[in-house]
Amino acid sequence: MIYLDNAATTRPRRRALERAQAFHEELFYNPSALYGGGFAVRAKLNAFRGELLAAVADAERFELVFTSGGTEADDHAVLAGARRGNAVTTAGEHAAVYRSFLELKNRSVEPRFAPVLRDGRVDAEALLRLVDDKTSLVSVVHVNNETGAVNDIAALARAVKEKNPRTLFHADGVQAFGKVNVRLPKEVDLYSVSAHKIGGVKGTGALIKRKSLALPPYLHGGGQENGLRSGTENTFGIAAFAYAAEEQFGALEREGARLLALRERLWEWLDKALFRRVSPADGTPYILAVSAAGMRGEVLQRMLFERGVCLGTGSACASKNRFSRVLTACGWGEDVLDGALRVSFSQATSEEEAAEAARAMNAVAKEYGERV
Amino acid sequence: MIYLDNAATTRPRRRALERAQAFHEELFYNPSALYGGGFAVRAKLNAFRGELLAAVADAERFELVFTSGGTEADDHAVLAGARRGNAVTTAGEHAAVYRSFLELKNRSVEPRFAPVLRDGRVDAEALLRLVDDKTSLVSVVHVNNETGAVNDIAALARAVKEKNPRTLFHADGVQAFGKVNVRLPKEVDLYSVSAHKIGGVKGTGALIKRKSLALPPYLHGGGQENGLRSGTENTFGIAAFAYAAEEQFGALEREGARLLALRERLWEWLDKALFRRVSPADGTPYILAVSAAGMRGEVLQRMLFERGVCLGTGSACASKNRFSRVLTACGWGEDVLDGALRVSFSQATSEEEAAEAARAMNAVAKEYGERV
Repeated sequence: MIYLDNAATTRPRRRALERAQAFHEELFYNPSALYGGGFAVRAKLNAFRGELLAAVADAERFELVFTSGGTEADDHAVLAGARRGNAVTTAGEHAAVYRSFLELKNRSVEPRFAPVLRDGRVDAEALLRLVDDKTSLVSVVHVNNETGAVNDIAALARAVKEKNPRTLFHADGVQAFGKVNVRLPKEVDLYSVSAHKIGGVKGTGALIKRKSLALPPYLHGGGQENGLRSGTENTFGIAAFAYAAEEQFGALEREGARLLALRERLWEWLDKALFRRVSPADGTPYILAVSAAGMRGEVLQRMLFERGVCLGTGSACASKNRFSRVLTACGWGEDVLDGALRVSFSQATSEEEAAEAARAMNAVAKEYGERV
Repeated sequence: MIYLDNAATTRPRRRALERAQAFHEELFYNPSALYGGGFAVRAKLNAFRGELLAAVADAERFELVFTSGGTEADDHAVLAGARRGNAVTTAGEHAAVYRSFLELKNRSVEPRFAPVLRDGRVDAEALLRLVDDKTSLVSVVHVNNETGAVNDIAALARAVKEKNPRTLFHADGVQAFGKVNVRLPKEVDLYSVSAHKIGGVKGTGALIKRKSLALPPYLHGGGQENGLRSGTENTFGIAAFAYAAEEQFGALEREGARLLALRERLWEWLDKALFRRVSPADGTPYILAVSAAGMRGEVLQRMLFERGVCLGTGSACASKNRFSRVLTACGWGEDVLDGALRVSFSQATSEEEAAEAARAMNAVAKEYGERV
């Protein structure tokens, strides 16, 4: 199986999981237990926390709260951050942010959506025009999960703070963490990350937050995670997250360069009579979105699966609608929307796999065209 | 290490985790992916869901929503169920329910707390007196996590519905699931369970709900779990939960009888000049709470850990206060509260371990007494 749907989820990293299993088998204690076993697992959790945080942020200024995944981190950031007035986001967000913004209406906060450009990046000027003295939160996805476009969150956060210093700035970093260079600037208040996009397991993520920012808790109970997120910690998932991140960040530069070249080679190999390119040149190396214009992406996807190639049609999380909400917002026509396919890489993707995927994509699109 | 703090968390079941690992390694796909791999993992998730639900409830009437644990299930039930008027719970609840009830004040719902009896069971008459025509939710812990007392949730739910048919009834079943016989009656609307109390992994649980009950979602995003709980499913944790439950429920009757006898034997072995009994005779077989009255439970706990015996002093989740909130509510005096110890069993606990634990408890309490 050639697996190129890594933006949906990655194959777990075997070595990271083995290390997590060894940790979990020995230190299975409740991290809140007040005896040696509990203290040991708690110390280890805090070491994992420190390592994950240090990968993208300064521990003097930021702290990290473990969550059940990127969605919980996004929901917490949006619903706790946007408490009054209005809140501004983009039309290119993942459903976790987008749907949380729709929920804001039920909480007397006005959601505002800035348009995106053709490649999926937010229209920065339009975003800033939506920010006013009543804006409590701005949320911008760091790497667009459908096109791979990278938003300059540092510049956007700075511009937002210049317009309204009291506005909180959140970025959904799920597709960025461990894949593009990130060093959170002081203007970013909240940042969401997820484990299963870098070889960890599903059900683990984190919300990175400015230390001096007071947030209401998302889960009420035993007071874990500094009272922000009660519930016995997912120690196995957290260990796997930290070990996977260690591998992922260790290879970040080298793999970024390799996959950027591989992404372009794959694009070269595709038959331009069949495929149009959706992803920008300056997007994440990990995503190449294309469209077999005029065809049905999900049909191609299934034909490819039968040939042993897995890839996506857009966000797996929003798979119930015919057209991608995000690609529609980018302004693509129905023919491109229908045929959208997302090839997404991991650090384990080989050149042979990409070549075989390109051959299969050309073959099924040709077959599809001849069949119709 | 003799591990008798199973009400805080259990040692993961090795075979269940191995099966979960095999599943997870093969079916690592995103359950929302619209190709064979995604369909396969989704089908398996639904099979796990069905098995877990069938263990305690009728699938015609109830459904099961996977959560990140017992705390999330409790929070969701309380905060979504108690939407107006007042809500009634007991003074014997786990922090996940207790703190959610305190949060209700911020949401214009009046929390009401019914007293508990000496053994930790709720005072049923007092509870019912608090229920009126403005009560939107009643929440009663099924098995008290500190004393092991069992509340008759079927009778309580029926009595609540007789008084106000519109009141929702929730029970926190975290210490009951797989340990005492449960068949949810039609009067129970919501029931919380957790994986890591029966040999699964931390970070997985479920909210069982009446199918016909409409709830607002707890997490907003990709629409997983029928829209009630967005976020990519914790497939590994869910598999481990289902496999652990299969083993746990398979031995429920036999182990219940064995551990009931073992609990009483352990009590017999304890030096009555040193220990008082806190747990009732008719409580769960899995918990024996005692008190070395006049001593400090946490000191004994550490002395025991050094001798290779792990046990609790109360709920690990509420370990920051000197006295247990729940045992205080039961009406125990300070000497008993200070010396409280909780011995909690699993299906893996042997008679030899219980005997050795009793010897160690007698020895450290004696030593403590001589030292002071």
